[in-house]
Amino acid sequence: MGVEERRQQLIGVALDLFSRRSPDEVSIDEIATAAGISRPLVYHYFPGKLSLYEAALKRASEDLAGRFAEPHDGPLGVRLLRVMRRYFDFVDDHGPGFSALMRGGPAVGSSATNALIDSVRQAAYEQILSHLGVTDAPPRLELVVRSWISLAESTALIWLDGRRIPRAELEVQLVHDFAALAAVSAAHDEDMATLLKKMVEDEPADGPFAELVGRLIALGV
Amino acid sequence: MGVEERRQQLIGVALDLFSRRSPDEVSIDEIATAAGISRPLVYHYFPGKLSLYEAALKRASEDLAGRFAEPHDGPLGVRLLRVMRRYFDFVDDHGPGFSALMRGGPAVGSSATNALIDSVRQAAYEQILSHLGVTDAPPRLELVVRSWISLAESTALIWLDGRRIPRAELEVQLVHDFAALAAVSAAHDEDMATLLKKMVEDEPADGPFAELVGRLIALGV
Repeated sequence: MGVEERRQQLIGVALDLFSRRSPDEVSIDEIATAAGISRPLVYHYFPGKLSLYEAALKRASEDLAGRFAEPHDGPLGVRLLRVMRRYFDFVDDHGPGFSALMRGGPAVGSSATNALIDSVRQAAYEQILSHLGVTDAPPRLELVVRSWISLAESTALIWLDGRRIPRAELEVQLVHDFAALAAVSAAHDEDMATLLKKMVEDEPADGPFAELVGRLIALGV
Repeated sequence: MGVEERRQQLIGVALDLFSRRSPDEVSIDEIATAAGISRPLVYHYFPGKLSLYEAALKRASEDLAGRFAEPHDGPLGVRLLRVMRRYFDFVDDHGPGFSALMRGGPAVGSSATNALIDSVRQAAYEQILSHLGVTDAPPRLELVVRSWISLAESTALIWLDGRRIPRAELEVQLVHDFAALAAVSAAHDEDMATLLKKMVEDEPADGPFAELVGRLIALGV
């Protein structure tokens, strides 16, 4: 194998191990064994576990950021639901590593890992704005989108802790949460109200946004 | 000064400095100068900056956890609004330190600091459950409360980044967000619907929950 090929293989092996267990618990010896090479050879390609962890996290971050990319076709609610499915696929595949990373801790809190987390959040933020047809978000829209992204993270983390709610329910719920947070903001601000009206006017009667309204009316609170 | 008195004084001085600037930027020399003692004397009481930081964070955590304590009197929405005001008072007073801590980073991501953050979240969680009259929360209620707590954190962090929205607006908005997230969950689950009905039935016509409904109806989306 060439140098770059070997590096990529090691990153893949490490990412797989870091995804299945907390990165703190994964040793270089284990990575070497899984890759079928010696421990010194691992160090030949990566100076230490942190640099291998950061390379694996970089690959995972690019993967996750890519999952937010969604064609600009069809109702907004349906697009967001497709993104949520891909997001939970990722969380499902990388559970323990995702939890350890997002909960912070000594091994994972380097400035490089924080920058990677921020890059994924930024990619998600920019994707959502592009679907809303907004280039320069006013502060209240920025707040709704960024705080909803953090809500999606915490929802995923809570789900991973025991998986006591079916993930399909949470995927729909997060789409509904987005509409609900936007509606609360619209209740406080005229520009957000205009945006919300534009957001829902093209939504079909059987789409996720209309479904929420129907469910709330049926609830009769 | 006695040993314990001196320690408490140093913690107070350090907390003040760690609150005003990112803890990374605060030196032991500065803390010594602010306390009016020599650098070696600081080390006599605390082995290093991390232990002093952790002691200051412990005091701040206890302060913040205490702000969630609210008498069980009057409408739920009004109680939560009072808590949100005290929460933003805290965030306002400790802005740079709060941001640095919650955004993670090499100096602040120790397991002791993470445990302190979790203890505050747990105190907030238990307070909210007690106001809802629930001792053993089912998974969906736990999700709503815990994810709303993380929403309050991210809202405060986004607010600190430029303070472009009046904090009084965000305090009310977070109360409304709680009702909105509970309503979305109620739209998906019968037990949550029962809880939501109980939650709003005693709310007065001029309380925050009714205000949200009124605003949304006026919006006519």
